[in-house]
Amino acid sequence: MQGISVPTVSINGHQLLQMGFRHLTGSLETKALEVVPPHQFKNDSLVFLDLRTKLPPSPDRGICLWAKGSNWREFRREGLLFLEYDHLKPAMAQVLSVFDRKSMAFPEGLSPRAHIDPTAKIGRLVRVGAGAVIQAGAVLEEEVHIGAGAVIEAEAIVGRGSIVHAKSVIGWNCRLGERCMIHSGAVIGSDGFGFAQGPDGTSYKIPQVGNVVLGHGVEVGALTTIDRATLGSTVIGDGCKFDNHCHVAHNCTIGPHSVFAAGFKISGSSRVGSHCLFAGEVVVTDHVHITDRVTIGGRSAITNDVTKPGAYTGYPLQPLRDGLKTIANLRELTRLRKDVATLSKLFKLGNRLHKGSEQ
Amino acid sequence: MQGISVPTVSINGHQLLQMGFRHLTGSLETKALEVVPPHQFKNDSLVFLDLRTKLPPSPDRGICLWAKGSNWREFRREGLLFLEYDHLKPAMAQVLSVFDRKSMAFPEGLSPRAHIDPTAKIGRLVRVGAGAVIQAGAVLEEEVHIGAGAVIEAEAIVGRGSIVHAKSVIGWNCRLGERCMIHSGAVIGSDGFGFAQGPDGTSYKIPQVGNVVLGHGVEVGALTTIDRATLGSTVIGDGCKFDNHCHVAHNCTIGPHSVFAAGFKISGSSRVGSHCLFAGEVVVTDHVHITDRVTIGGRSAITNDVTKPGAYTGYPLQPLRDGLKTIANLRELTRLRKDVATLSKLFKLGNRLHKGSEQ
Amino acid sequence: MQGISVPTVSINGHQLLQMGFRHLTGSLETKALEVVPPHQFKNDSLVFLDLRTKLPPSPDRGICLWAKGSNWREFRREGLLFLEYDHLKPAMAQVLSVFDRKSMAFPEGLSPRAHIDPTAKIGRLVRVGAGAVIQAGAVLEEEVHIGAGAVIEAEAIVGRGSIVHAKSVIGWNCRLGERCMIHSGAVIGSDGFGFAQGPDGTSYKIPQVGNVVLGHGVEVGALTTIDRATLGSTVIGDGCKFDNHCHVAHNCTIGPHSVFAAGFKISGSSRVGSHCLFAGEVVVTDHVHITDRVTIGGRSAITNDVTKPGAYTGYPLQPLRDGLKTIANLRELTRLRKDVATLSKLFKLGNRLHKGSEQ
Repeated sequence: MQGISVPTVSINGHQLLQMGFRHLTGSLETKALEVVPPHQFKNDSLVFLDLRTKLPPSPDRGICLWAKGSNWREFRREGLLFLEYDHLKPAMAQVLSVFDRKSMAFPEGLSPRAHIDPTAKIGRLVRVGAGAVIQAGAVLEEEVHIGAGAVIEAEAIVGRGSIVHAKSVIGWNCRLGERCMIHSGAVIGSDGFGFAQGPDGTSYKIPQVGNVVLGHGVEVGALTTIDRATLGSTVIGDGCKFDNHCHVAHNCTIGPHSVFAAGFKISGSSRVGSHCLFAGEVVVTDHVHITDRVTIGGRSAITNDVTKPGAYTGYPLQPLRDGLKTIANLRELTRLRKDVATLSKLFKLGNRLHKGSEQ
Repeated sequence: MQGISVPTVSINGHQLLQMGFRHLTGSLETKALEVVPPHQFKNDSLVFLDLRTKLPPSPDRGICLWAKGSNWREFRREGLLFLEYDHLKPAMAQVLSVFDRKSMAFPEGLSPRAHIDPTAKIGRLVRVGAGAVIQAGAVLEEEVHIGAGAVIEAEAIVGRGSIVHAKSVIGWNCRLGERCMIHSGAVIGSDGFGFAQGPDGTSYKIPQVGNVVLGHGVEVGALTTIDRATLGSTVIGDGCKFDNHCHVAHNCTIGPHSVFAAGFKISGSSRVGSHCLFAGEVVVTDHVHITDRVTIGGRSAITNDVTKPGAYTGYPLQPLRDGLKTIANLRELTRLRKDVATLSKLFKLGNRLHKGSEQ
Repeated sequence: MQGISVPTVSINGHQLLQMGFRHLTGSLETKALEVVPPHQFKNDSLVFLDLRTKLPPSPDRGICLWAKGSNWREFRREGLLFLEYDHLKPAMAQVLSVFDRKSMAFPEGLSPRAHIDPTAKIGRLVRVGAGAVIQAGAVLEEEVHIGAGAVIEAEAIVGRGSIVHAKSVIGWNCRLGERCMIHSGAVIGSDGFGFAQGPDGTSYKIPQVGNVVLGHGVEVGALTTIDRATLGSTVIGDGCKFDNHCHVAHNCTIGPHSVFAAGFKISGSSRVGSHCLFAGEVVVTDHVHITDRVTIGGRSAITNDVTKPGAYTGYPLQPLRDGLKTIANLRELTRLRKDVATLSKLFKLGNRLHKGSEQ
């Protein structure tokens, strides 16, 4: 059966849809109550096992998902269901969704303790939690979940199937595509940071009258901010994923399927292409243009356009290999300084000796 | 007329107050519904145009604001109102306020779904949104706007005309001056980070009993925190502007009209002068004193006093020009290391040769 | 009496429990209404004075706490109570708690304007503020305080005596130990940042079904996030203290009594030992292991295991002394580059001369 997926493999009665799972041994009727790390395997649980894991002898009721090529045969025993997976992350993506009980935080229906303006449009199967505020003219398309205490400001639109977690804010006139997920405390549509300086050094606010437009399937981490455009829109492409504590300034444009780890910050009017990958704490200055399929190492600072796909790191930014060498060589800077001082001294001395020998 | 402003210039019936606008051609009765970026110019919209923009032929009903010196004459046509501005940012500051509809997020009056303690003092024309909490003894002076779900804790004072956006928190006993703007999720008056270490390494909390005092016209970005003082006050001067994700620690003092881009963080008891400008992600350690009119480049780290006005950058901090050179020269570090290794080898070799030639 | 603590020393009728205070002079009946910085000393206030402070002549009713060894005798006068303390921070920790009135932000009892699910378990003497949401199956143990607008999601447990400030979120199934303090806007239990990449570059979410477990006495700063584990738990040890804007990713384990200044960020599955101390803006990459009793300088980046206790700084990380030298020597980089260029030129020239002399 190796290499042929069995479409009828199911866990807890939920059929696994993607390719990549095979039945090894045991009853497909076996149920698991929770997924645990391998060292916590116990009765009625499910574990993911990699090539090197050895199964402890004790639990005799549960589900084991083995990496392709594992030596599972010696561990088989009655009461255990063994399945095989091809790749860990896609397998986890599918199997864990069966066990995700976070929807408990979104009770069904519209809480009588939510504050929903009568002019808001609420689709079918929408859930709105206690203390949430849905302002005038806001639109919640079908199957949207709004968490406890979240605020959907006037005229904002939340696309079908999107989930807005507790305490996040979708600002006036901003738009979320379908199946977006906004984590707790995130702020979509805060004002861009724009001021005019008066002759006396006083800053006058430039009102930020644009909005934020998120594509489909965008995930925004907890306490991330995406500022509205001064004019027009700050645009986030389909499938982009932002970790916690990120910041996207006014009028930025982010291409589809780019991924940003925690603490990413990008200044006004910059553009990022599609399928880019940013490690943690990267900053980008304003009006910079980064092309598609660019990967950036952690804590880099990008102050100029990146015009070629590839991997880069550092401040100043360099191609990845060069940048890593620069970082490593910083450890040698003190020695380098001493060596140069020594060489300078010796050279002067040598020169004198040399001149002496010429006399 | 060049150089002489016409005080009666108006847009949508709102007279423009500042100097710096001139009527060029077209009817002052022309109305615009929205402001759009130049490439999205359409009927009934307003655009700002710079010296190089060429107006597309199609829209024939709208308002064009031309930069002084633009070649506007060739684009004039019936139905378009042309005005001229001196400087873009002051012009935007004034014109965009006519079009700012974010006040929709602050419906008039006190929401019956807000939680207002009977001992709170509420001024004339105050707006409080649904789900907001105004605690005992808090004071909202006239024309204050409190967003949905914001919390004004006990004994806090919000000065006249200030706007506190959704979900932000003004902590116990903190004071905001007049015309402040606090963006969503900001926290004014969180505890300072102060602990006493016990002999066993346990940290005992030092209660933070001071407060935060903001001057007039202070803007605080989304998800920015300003910690209360341990004793006394953390003080922010008039007209300071903080971007998103900034952090001001306990007992800091910030002079008037200083501006801080996203991610600025300053540790306890440090002082910043007036009219300073900090680019993104700058950090300042504790008990540092930075004088007036200092400009700091992005991602700098300031660990010592800055006693002279001027521009600086880097970590360690250097005068701007030197700091930029240091950053640029980091790219040469790997080559430098190789060169020094080569020189050392050659020098030894040379010395030997030299000595050989002396024999 | 030097060196012997008097257990009956009290302030405002609150007996000071710890060792380290001695009565010098004045009536123990003296009361203070507030604690102020030394330069603001006035009638009915309390001040902490160090060895060099000179007491102004004016206030004649109040309490002065003198550092051990101070020259207090010359300042004594009727109406002033003088006590002596051994160490400032432990003294402040104890005395300021007498004056902390922030509990005003947590009115007694369960606010009728809170949203408490009937299946939640609420202990004795619990306080829940207006607009707070306590979801199904959540547990608030005795003496817990929940601030205005905070959200305790389904099945979360808040341990005895813990304080959750306004607007913070305790996510589904997360657990707080006893006496924890969670500051405003913090998010405990946001999703870990985990995705499977499809062959077309699309990111599929890996559901995060684990939780966060905080030990006893943990303090979490305003707007700090601690992500839930993918499987199992993200674990924070007893007595850990996090400043504002920190980020702990999924599946990290932090040992007891470690302290993290503002902006600390640690990526997935990394481990930090006990009694560690991190200055501001330190980042740690994923799957790194840092041992016990490690101290890290500000803005360091840790990309490899730290296996020996001690102090370190920089990026790359070096022992503290070396790391500080590296940072200082960066200032010399531009000169170094010039020196090496000069040496190279001279060497070539010298070589030629030398060769000439050999002819």
